[in-house]
Amino acid sequence: MPHIPFEPGVPGIRGPMVFRPETAKPLRQLAEILLRAESTLTPGERELIATYVSALNDCHYCQTVHGCTAAAYLGGDDALVEAVKRNPGEAEISEKLKALLAIAARVQRDGKLVRAEDVERARALGATDLEIHDTVLIAAAFCMYNRYVDGLATWAPEQDHIYRNMANRVVTVGYTQPGWEKPFSEGQTV
Amino acid sequence: MPHIPFEPGVPGIRGPMVFRPETAKPLRQLAEILLRAESTLTPGERELIATYVSALNDCHYCQTVHGCTAAAYLGGDDALVEAVKRNPGEAEISEKLKALLAIAARVQRDGKLVRAEDVERARALGATDLEIHDTVLIAAAFCMYNRYVDGLATWAPEQDHIYRNMANRVVTVGYTQPGWEKPFSEGQTV
Repeated sequence: MPHIPFEPGVPGIRGPMVFRPETAKPLRQLAEILLRAESTLTPGERELIATYVSALNDCHYCQTVHGCTAAAYLGGDDALVEAVKRNPGEAEISEKLKALLAIAARVQRDGKLVRAEDVERARALGATDLEIHDTVLIAAAFCMYNRYVDGLATWAPEQDHIYRNMANRVVTVGYTQPGWEKPFSEGQTV
Repeated sequence: MPHIPFEPGVPGIRGPMVFRPETAKPLRQLAEILLRAESTLTPGERELIATYVSALNDCHYCQTVHGCTAAAYLGGDDALVEAVKRNPGEAEISEKLKALLAIAARVQRDGKLVRAEDVERARALGATDLEIHDTVLIAAAFCMYNRYVDGLATWAPEQDHIYRNMANRVVTVGYTQPGWEKPFSEGQTV
């Protein structure tokens, strides 16, 4: 039961976003820029950072929908997403991405835990200043999105296809196109 | 020393915002809507929530600049701001604001810690659904801003007048008007 009344059938963060469209706008624009705008990190890599931080924050809705989105970008590789959530150090990803995920994990706990040596390691593995900046801001932003979703006790659907549907839509049209605010009806399939 | 090179003399969150204007835009719009747009919570009350969460996250820059902003809105009452940071339950604020600050403190730790009874208590003291929503999102957003500021090791000035200057500017023109990106020079006074 959500802490305040949201439109039925609207999952996760979309409930409070429909309730408060004024704040939904910058929140969705921030996600679009960080996760989908032009970058030397692929959308799949950036969704992995978002998924990993959401898993560390134990946010079921966010880690599931962004995990599905990461997998959709990565050719349907659900196993890789699960491996990153379990332990990025042993996942089949680049050493640079491992170093960025290590920075993200520190930001998730407390920004002050990021050490100069963590940043130097990422840089030595090829990370640019912009990639380091965006990693810190993606991790910080998901500490917000996760708390927004959980702090209002929003609806986290159990049906896998609802998350796949949302993920496929993000891959196709992104985070800001109208249509995200529509409810899912019971038993709806993709 | 910031982890990536920012323009000298630009304090706190403004360093990475100058570095990455694309993300600065939604970040500043979100602050403007949450902290200054029309609301049944006063700007002073909302800045107190931001200050309290930033203090719980031990973010020196954010708790100082938002604390100065709260004080500026509250007729210069620095003692009240300090009292809220120390223990909202014993501060000279409304019972409704105490209940909202209790929700904010739970969101700061983990959104899942917000209980139905915390929300009921706030509601019984007069809080509306929108006030509860905005309290959760202000608390969540400052968990982002604080990590962004600290995760990049941005410059937190020691000079009190720099914070007062920024606070007075926010009270006068808000968070989104051009001018926030300007550096402070050494020894500059308000």
